[in-house]
Amino acid sequence: MIKKVIEQSNNLLYEPELRTIPVGVSARHIHLSLEHIDTLFGKGYELQLYKELSQPGQFAAKESVMLAGPKGTIDKVRILGPARGTTQVEVSLTDAHRLGISPPIRDSGDIAGSSPITIIGPKGSVYLKEGAIIASRHIHMSEEDAWQFQVHDKEKVHVISQTERRVIFSDVKIRVHANYRLEFHIDTDEANAARLTNQDQVWILKYE
Amino acid sequence: MIKKVIEQSNNLLYEPELRTIPVGVSARHIHLSLEHIDTLFGKGYELQLYKELSQPGQFAAKESVMLAGPKGTIDKVRILGPARGTTQVEVSLTDAHRLGISPPIRDSGDIAGSSPITIIGPKGSVYLKEGAIIASRHIHMSEEDAWQFQVHDKEKVHVISQTERRVIFSDVKIRVHANYRLEFHIDTDEANAARLTNQDQVWILKYE
Repeated sequence: MIKKVIEQSNNLLYEPELRTIPVGVSARHIHLSLEHIDTLFGKGYELQLYKELSQPGQFAAKESVMLAGPKGTIDKVRILGPARGTTQVEVSLTDAHRLGISPPIRDSGDIAGSSPITIIGPKGSVYLKEGAIIASRHIHMSEEDAWQFQVHDKEKVHVISQTERRVIFSDVKIRVHANYRLEFHIDTDEANAARLTNQDQVWILKYE
Repeated sequence: MIKKVIEQSNNLLYEPELRTIPVGVSARHIHLSLEHIDTLFGKGYELQLYKELSQPGQFAAKESVMLAGPKGTIDKVRILGPARGTTQVEVSLTDAHRLGISPPIRDSGDIAGSSPITIIGPKGSVYLKEGAIIASRHIHMSEEDAWQFQVHDKEKVHVISQTERRVIFSDVKIRVHANYRLEFHIDTDEANAARLTNQDQVWILKYE
């Protein structure tokens, strides 16, 4: 499989007209339910906009929380809004070691059986029985992008980072939605392993 | 180039008799000169053996130091013995962000123009004008291993990690020495990006 991928796609790397994909590095963050915003920040509290994110409608809030696990805490963890139906914590494996938890690698939203974690806010704290994951790397794109790249929703591809620390990431899932802006989402461990930063460009290599 | 690598080597991945390479994850650590051991721990101090490392003659010392940069400190950084001619600090990019330094990615020993850093011990501290690096990933092997893998000293290869977080690391340098024990050395960011741990096994893919 890898053989064919590289065979068919090797030339792409050297075709300057080929579209590249900008990198978006996700630092540790949390999505909160309305119920948990109430618990952590007070009844009826509304998250304040700090800055808008590249995906439309998503924003980083001014507020932050502390995460706690059996081995340690991490302070000033950014909250991403708007509120979601279910609270979800996304950390790197480096963070997980520091907290003393062992989260599964999952797509966002898939939290059944994921790691327990404690979230501490200014007005209260929440013990989640499940909810902490390490996010699977993925590419957001619109339907038009998907057509141009000749890929489809949920397809897995390789992604090449032509950096000083060159890496090929396998099993990267394509996620297509009309509202998605083209971006390769990785966590800080993945970014550091390849010495990638926001707005660096990467290439897709298709599976066969 | 990548095309040929994968073409010739694709089959290897599925040949069970093919030798694999055990992974050795290097956490942040420091090698100290005798002069700096004197400054940090007192004149004539000798490092105490904590445990022997996989590479013959190398050991982790019981002692540790603190590292400090413009943005932060990292405590309990392991010292690796024996003493070397020149002090060298090896950190991950994650560590570098925490310290507020921007070290180059280098082979061990190549520290000209690398990052300045402060080292703090129980009896004194040292300001290094250069000496902090992020270590280039590499494979240690004996001459017999090199013959078996059909590679030579300083050759660069790809390394595949067949983990849940599958990654192909490119530009991995082979380092051959009679005393070296077979091991793929990566830092904690690289290990976490691929979810590799010590004693996991990886495969070599040769360049053409």
